[in-house]
Amino acid sequence: MLELRLPQGGLLKKVLEAMRELVTDANFDCSRSGISLQAMDSTHVALVALLLSADSFDHFRCDRSRSIGMNLNCLAKILRCAANDDVLTLKADDDSDTVVFIFENPKQNKITDFEMKLMDIQSEHLGIPEAQYQAIIKMSSQEFARICKDLSSIGDTVVISVTKEGVKFSTTGDIGSANIVCRQNTTVDKPEESMIIEMNDPVSLAFALRYLNAFTKATPLSNSVKICMSSDLPVVVEYKIAEMGYIRYYLAPKIEDDDQT
Amino acid sequence: MLELRLPQGGLLKKVLEAMRELVTDANFDCSRSGISLQAMDSTHVALVALLLSADSFDHFRCDRSRSIGMNLNCLAKILRCAANDDVLTLKADDDSDTVVFIFENPKQNKITDFEMKLMDIQSEHLGIPEAQYQAIIKMSSQEFARICKDLSSIGDTVVISVTKEGVKFSTTGDIGSANIVCRQNTTVDKPEESMIIEMNDPVSLAFALRYLNAFTKATPLSNSVKICMSSDLPVVVEYKIAEMGYIRYYLAPKIEDDDQT
Amino acid sequence: MLELRLPQGGLLKKVLEAMRELVTDANFDCSRSGISLQAMDSTHVALVALLLSADSFDHFRCDRSRSIGMNLNCLAKILRCAANDDVLTLKADDDSDTVVFIFENPKQNKITDFEMKLMDIQSEHLGIPEAQYQAIIKMSSQEFARICKDLSSIGDTVVISVTKEGVKFSTTGDIGSANIVCRQNTTVDKPEESMIIEMNDPVSLAFALRYLNAFTKATPLSNSVKICMSSDLPVVVEYKIAEMGYIRYYLAPKIEDDDQT
Repeated sequence: MLELRLPQGGLLKKVLEAMRELVTDANFDCSRSGISLQAMDSTHVALVALLLSADSFDHFRCDRSRSIGMNLNCLAKILRCAANDDVLTLKADDDSDTVVFIFENPKQNKITDFEMKLMDIQSEHLGIPEAQYQAIIKMSSQEFARICKDLSSIGDTVVISVTKEGVKFSTTGDIGSANIVCRQNTTVDKPEESMIIEMNDPVSLAFALRYLNAFTKATPLSNSVKICMSSDLPVVVEYKIAEMGYIRYYLAPKIEDDDQT
Repeated sequence: MLELRLPQGGLLKKVLEAMRELVTDANFDCSRSGISLQAMDSTHVALVALLLSADSFDHFRCDRSRSIGMNLNCLAKILRCAANDDVLTLKADDDSDTVVFIFENPKQNKITDFEMKLMDIQSEHLGIPEAQYQAIIKMSSQEFARICKDLSSIGDTVVISVTKEGVKFSTTGDIGSANIVCRQNTTVDKPEESMIIEMNDPVSLAFALRYLNAFTKATPLSNSVKICMSSDLPVVVEYKIAEMGYIRYYLAPKIEDDDQT
Repeated sequence: MLELRLPQGGLLKKVLEAMRELVTDANFDCSRSGISLQAMDSTHVALVALLLSADSFDHFRCDRSRSIGMNLNCLAKILRCAANDDVLTLKADDDSDTVVFIFENPKQNKITDFEMKLMDIQSEHLGIPEAQYQAIIKMSSQEFARICKDLSSIGDTVVISVTKEGVKFSTTGDIGSANIVCRQNTTVDKPEESMIIEMNDPVSLAFALRYLNAFTKATPLSNSVKICMSSDLPVVVEYKIAEMGYIRYYLAPKIEDDDQT
């Protein structure tokens, strides 16, 4: 028996929107410690990793570890029927090939239940080793989203360069070139607007903007985003999920001779 | 001579939007008692009936009963030019094949008039006998609209089942099945959110969601909707129009062996 | 060296939106007195003229008069990256074939620079003689935009007739005809809503609504619009730009025998 209960159904909608542009079908790995997910995007270039820890649920019971395969578009259709403040319960019998979603409104006079068919999805779990990064940027998630969107109207690739003073985002395209420089800035009264740079070595890496733009769909989940960079490692773009866990995106840097596509 | 005056032109816009998805051309039957309209939708499955009583107008004069045939898309183009708080006057000479709309803004420094050609539309008036219904549901019109929209993302047909305790809306589709249960609920402080069930017999009927969704275009006209159901009768979905009259939709239930289209 | 600085970058966005529907490529003529622009629309029917005077900039330096040719769609892509309250600086070396835009946010922790390629655009400057007009209308720019939009849902051509009492806008189309009459009105408490008519002779002229609708893209630049009409001259539709200058549109009236297209 798997049974879990979230007081704010709206959160799961946001988690789903954060993945849906990259991943269509995915296995949610359920165990006593919580729910995790790992999925490559359809072009096998970016990796999404999700963690929702068991103790952050109102109620969490998972008798037997199992993977629940879902089509995220079907899941989105169902979650769209939940109001943001509905209490959400998810139930699956151990041998069942369906999962049941129950939404209860706060006034408790409306109960919605959905039974959704599960899918058999082949997936392998990659071990992602802990790493030491040359530079870690913590910045406003909205600012990061804005920068990625703005630069994509000029070019396809962004070069992110980190120095002690700040971060430079650069791109080039047919109509010209653009640089956005953000200075380190630790506003105490609005911590969500601060930009903090932890740097061991200066680092400068190029990434395809279309993936970064897909990652920024997680912006509603968190006020800030953490970007971990090293020359020889995929970048990690991490959004914390309100005391529950995180969603992380991994993307390999472009090699200098790469086509700018 | 036909001449009528509405202090809030915006109301007529809402009435029009409530019909336009189902009906393209329609006869407005004008008589001393007011304006009524009856029209089948283009697939001849649903019926719309409108009543605006004469005494609810600021001014109402109708010397001779007549039918005024209008194309509702043309009418919509004209009404779109009226601000919601414009005073609206409609005039038609008895033998004229045009009708004149006059919009006056509240500050009375802008007057707009439109002369629109009338149409000859063949239509028959169906007598709809008063009936005794097995169950009558009164509920929030927004809640009803939300339920119909949510269920259409899962299936094509909704089964509405009424018992003393509440109403269940159910559907099934490729991705699974859904049930929404609303309990009777007579909130005194917010009567527009209450759900009241008057039931003689339990009843359970199936309807095509696309028609119910079209009916919910009348939601801006009223906070609540009345749904009258009997096994052997078309369902009536009624929205009251602010002390003026009503718009009613009639739809035959689906027979159990119907294709789910 | 050309260098200019605008405290509110958002203003330039609005100027651009006011031209972009009519003009794709345009020369900005820069001189010590400021920036001006003159461009025909692609159908060679309407003329746009822009003036931004040098002393209205925070800082304005132009060592040598020159024309800066830009593609307005590229310029729009760049300006879209500026927040409305960013300080905008534009720089071009005298022999350079690029121009640099710099946006600084008010908190001064984010600096964006764009280098855009310039274009060689052939253009002639028309001398527009000062003229005496039969009638000059000053009215709310929003009201004018609303009227042009409303009438285009009925017909293609508007006849604007000015008398001492007011202005009548008329059109005719397949579904009927429409007249909008605005009376002179000098509201003292809301001067932006007033309509003032200065008239030497009554005048009545016909114009293609699609051009007038394109002119109304300048509505966000000014609360009021000035319309200057004479039987033998193109109409001038002028929007003042907040103490900086103006944008003016010129359009020849339709001759009575014109097709209404």
